[in-house]
Amino acid sequence: MSRLRKEITSCSYSVVKTMSGRSIATCFRLIVHFKHKHENVRQIITKPFGGSMMNFQQLLQARRSVNQFDPNATISRDDLESMIESATLAPSSYNLQHWRFLVVDDKEQKLKLKKAAFHQQKVEDASAAIVILGNLQAHKDAERIADDLTEKGYLPAQYKENVINQIEGLYSNESMQRDEAIRGSSLAAMALMLAAKEKGYGSCPMIGFDPQLVRQEFNIPEHLIPVMMITIGTDLDPEMPRKIRFAVEEVTTYNGF
Amino acid sequence: MSRLRKEITSCSYSVVKTMSGRSIATCFRLIVHFKHKHENVRQIITKPFGGSMMNFQQLLQARRSVNQFDPNATISRDDLESMIESATLAPSSYNLQHWRFLVVDDKEQKLKLKKAAFHQQKVEDASAAIVILGNLQAHKDAERIADDLTEKGYLPAQYKENVINQIEGLYSNESMQRDEAIRGSSLAAMALMLAAKEKGYGSCPMIGFDPQLVRQEFNIPEHLIPVMMITIGTDLDPEMPRKIRFAVEEVTTYNGF
Repeated sequence: MSRLRKEITSCSYSVVKTMSGRSIATCFRLIVHFKHKHENVRQIITKPFGGSMMNFQQLLQARRSVNQFDPNATISRDDLESMIESATLAPSSYNLQHWRFLVVDDKEQKLKLKKAAFHQQKVEDASAAIVILGNLQAHKDAERIADDLTEKGYLPAQYKENVINQIEGLYSNESMQRDEAIRGSSLAAMALMLAAKEKGYGSCPMIGFDPQLVRQEFNIPEHLIPVMMITIGTDLDPEMPRKIRFAVEEVTTYNGF
Repeated sequence: MSRLRKEITSCSYSVVKTMSGRSIATCFRLIVHFKHKHENVRQIITKPFGGSMMNFQQLLQARRSVNQFDPNATISRDDLESMIESATLAPSSYNLQHWRFLVVDDKEQKLKLKKAAFHQQKVEDASAAIVILGNLQAHKDAERIADDLTEKGYLPAQYKENVINQIEGLYSNESMQRDEAIRGSSLAAMALMLAAKEKGYGSCPMIGFDPQLVRQEFNIPEHLIPVMMITIGTDLDPEMPRKIRFAVEEVTTYNGF
């Protein structure tokens, strides 16, 4: 570890030294060069420089719901899994992680999904569609989650049983199960769309599909509900204007109505 | 801890001071220099720059559900509104923007909210709590939204009525109204938590409250449902370890089950 750290330090110093007085483009090229030269260095090296040239605000601004995907573009499973990994960093109540991801990247399967999505062309043109599923039985993971909380100092061991009982009580209510499945997986969905944009992909969240037909075509188990579908691919028209947003003062109230 | 904090503060101020008017390359060099000189400085160093030095991945990694807020810290309404503005950049189906924000930053009102949240101390200690509300009647904005879509070239004028009818059809279903209110405002909630972190604040999403009591105490109109509460403030313990996350392969399936 300390050897790696030393190597990384020296590596990031050489990047800095070499970059002095160079253009941003050159700096970026050099970072990529060093990134590839040193395996595992990425995490540390990107820290001072930012892994992407876009900061969070730029990313939020740049993200749009894509109108038209390039039907010839493809996406690697590495990229898809990296986005999913980002999505799993979202929070969820009791850390129950209601999210599940059905990735549809096979041509035939995309056509099946398109049919269930009222023949929307986007589903076929996107490089992949991810059906975000919400777990109605998330409370079944309570013990595993509580063990982790105790281990990391969040939850004293003597309260563990209490918390597990609390979770089971909460989830005995069917409406709460559904609300929670939607809430938890929607938080993850937002992180996923931003992660896609960070990697240069466009996305479009969609609810226009027949959930029963999707369940049937893809054998989705009963305890998972389709919450939304996110199509991902290459945006053919990233310059489309942003749709209207209600102003902050229209949607905000302080301390009561 | 306070020694470290002082050192860090003085360090990050010197970075700011030294960087004024320097080239980007020089800034990078200085940041790396200070980063290595002071261990753990990264997080604070990004603060004076409004977080712009943290990229999206760093922000996602740095965001945690805060355990303990500094009860003496405050937050400005400018900062709160900037976070809300970020939140409104989330997508929503048909751009109906189901999100509404009840900001509770008054001491007395926070105590009322705390009572409705089963006396959780976090609600009092946080600088503000934002109750994220979801609009069950979002379809009432259909005409305004459709006008915007037509104006910006997303929707040919002759299809406008169709879309409005489609939206009204979709929202005639009460379960869909509720699902949509939760989905849309949860997407915004995720953006809000990341925006808070970008500004150097910690946050904690909470569902442990009595929605009826919150409605009553804050006069929330019937068509808005409390979806979650986000407490925001200064994280007293940002070094707590991340809670377990299910691995990508545990939550992902390709092209069917």
